[in-house]
Amino acid sequence: MTTNEQKKCVTIFVISDSAGETASKLAAASMAQYPTVDFSLFRRTFAKEEDKLRKALEDAKRENAMVLHTIVNDHLVKIANDFFEEHNLYHFDILTPPVAEIERLTGIAPTREPGALHHLNENYFKRIEAMEFAVKYDDGKDPRGFLEADVLLLGVSRTSKTPLSLFLANKNLKVANLPLIPEAHLPKQLWETNPKKIVGLTNDPDILNGIRKERMRTYGLPADTSYSDIEKIRKELSFANDLYEKLGCVVINVASLSIEETASMILNALNLEDHSYYATESPEA
Amino acid sequence: MTTNEQKKCVTIFVISDSAGETASKLAAASMAQYPTVDFSLFRRTFAKEEDKLRKALEDAKRENAMVLHTIVNDHLVKIANDFFEEHNLYHFDILTPPVAEIERLTGIAPTREPGALHHLNENYFKRIEAMEFAVKYDDGKDPRGFLEADVLLLGVSRTSKTPLSLFLANKNLKVANLPLIPEAHLPKQLWETNPKKIVGLTNDPDILNGIRKERMRTYGLPADTSYSDIEKIRKELSFANDLYEKLGCVVINVASLSIEETASMILNALNLEDHSYYATESPEA
Repeated sequence: MTTNEQKKCVTIFVISDSAGETASKLAAASMAQYPTVDFSLFRRTFAKEEDKLRKALEDAKRENAMVLHTIVNDHLVKIANDFFEEHNLYHFDILTPPVAEIERLTGIAPTREPGALHHLNENYFKRIEAMEFAVKYDDGKDPRGFLEADVLLLGVSRTSKTPLSLFLANKNLKVANLPLIPEAHLPKQLWETNPKKIVGLTNDPDILNGIRKERMRTYGLPADTSYSDIEKIRKELSFANDLYEKLGCVVINVASLSIEETASMILNALNLEDHSYYATESPEA
Repeated sequence: MTTNEQKKCVTIFVISDSAGETASKLAAASMAQYPTVDFSLFRRTFAKEEDKLRKALEDAKRENAMVLHTIVNDHLVKIANDFFEEHNLYHFDILTPPVAEIERLTGIAPTREPGALHHLNENYFKRIEAMEFAVKYDDGKDPRGFLEADVLLLGVSRTSKTPLSLFLANKNLKVANLPLIPEAHLPKQLWETNPKKIVGLTNDPDILNGIRKERMRTYGLPADTSYSDIEKIRKELSFANDLYEKLGCVVINVASLSIEETASMILNALNLEDHSYYATESPEA
């Protein structure tokens, strides 16, 4: 179907005998390097049985796709490699090189069990607890959460507080957030929270203006309301920045950052980068 | 420091000129293959300047680490490769092979810009909206959300409804969830929702019993309460399973699944696997 030479379109297949998260991330990162190419992405995950894998490989061949895969089962890896060789299909085996290196270093063989391993361990509970914490203490719903939180996010409307809280929760951190509104009363717990756990989020007025106009449009309202008024936005931001200075907290301008980038900067700024969740988190391939 | 031969411990460095999400996923997947090895994982992300990169490389060398990296900037890739060669350090360049293959297929050069690209596009708004939706319609808070949702999750307590909702939201899906309690009234919107959008979550009684006892313990309460009573759990599950049958919805037993795995099974069961978010999601490397 795809005539790559003319149309500049590329089909990518993610194949995994597990959830395929690693290969999906890699596909997204690779595609991001080619904003003008028209990509089709297909996922064939949990291909744990020979039949299911063979069907996935046939599908990829028919689409003339490039294949990114994370297959851990020895027998399935061999089937895939034979298929790729026979049909001359591009494939990138993401997992085998680092797994082989660990075997070389330790002399220990990999388990070759696909997918996540531990479900009822302490770490799993912590992650679920962190997610529930984020939902419970979102949007300043209960400032008593500030004192228990690993991270407290402050910010005016549309500085990505909720998505950031959820993203960090997924890394086992308890995150509360408080929207800043110049007229509103600030909860006393704000002053009792360790400023080293607080992150003040800010943004460029023009960008907030654009986001808020867009939001009004999606609500079917006129774009120019007081919510999107640039002078009002400047006042809100100046109120927020004054507060951040008083608190002595870290300040991050999210204007040119994605959620993932902001989250990484928060981990960095709060010295949480090497937080133990990485070594023990529920792993997936 | 590390004496790999004796201690069976391995140090992994994730180095990226972006957020390092892809390499972190790969590190977790690789580590999962060696449950008996003692891993240390360090992340050096946003190494966009030569100084920062060199420091990360020096740190990795000092720890005698294996390096997984996603660096897109040409100049930085060369610095890294020279360093690896000079110091004979194991390294796995995750991004270059698929990026090179796309260039070969299309004849187009990669942008080599690190990190996410589009911030104010439609897709970004959709993701934020989906996350806010999940928080708003979590825990049956407002059944009016059922009709607007892409996915409605049903389940008794401790079947991972909230974390699953958030995980799927991160894939741009609007997810509502409703806890099932035999005594409670079922909202009328449940019967107005397309059963093809509904997923009934269930679990093994013994596992729920274990989870709930553990939860009671973390609350500082006695482990054996009516919440964790096995007969009560059986009744709850039987009530849930009867309801799923009446609704004619997909049923997933989360007993042996991680959140990622359950989420992938939901995408598969609801034919959302090739949902367009993959091709357009805010990409990160």
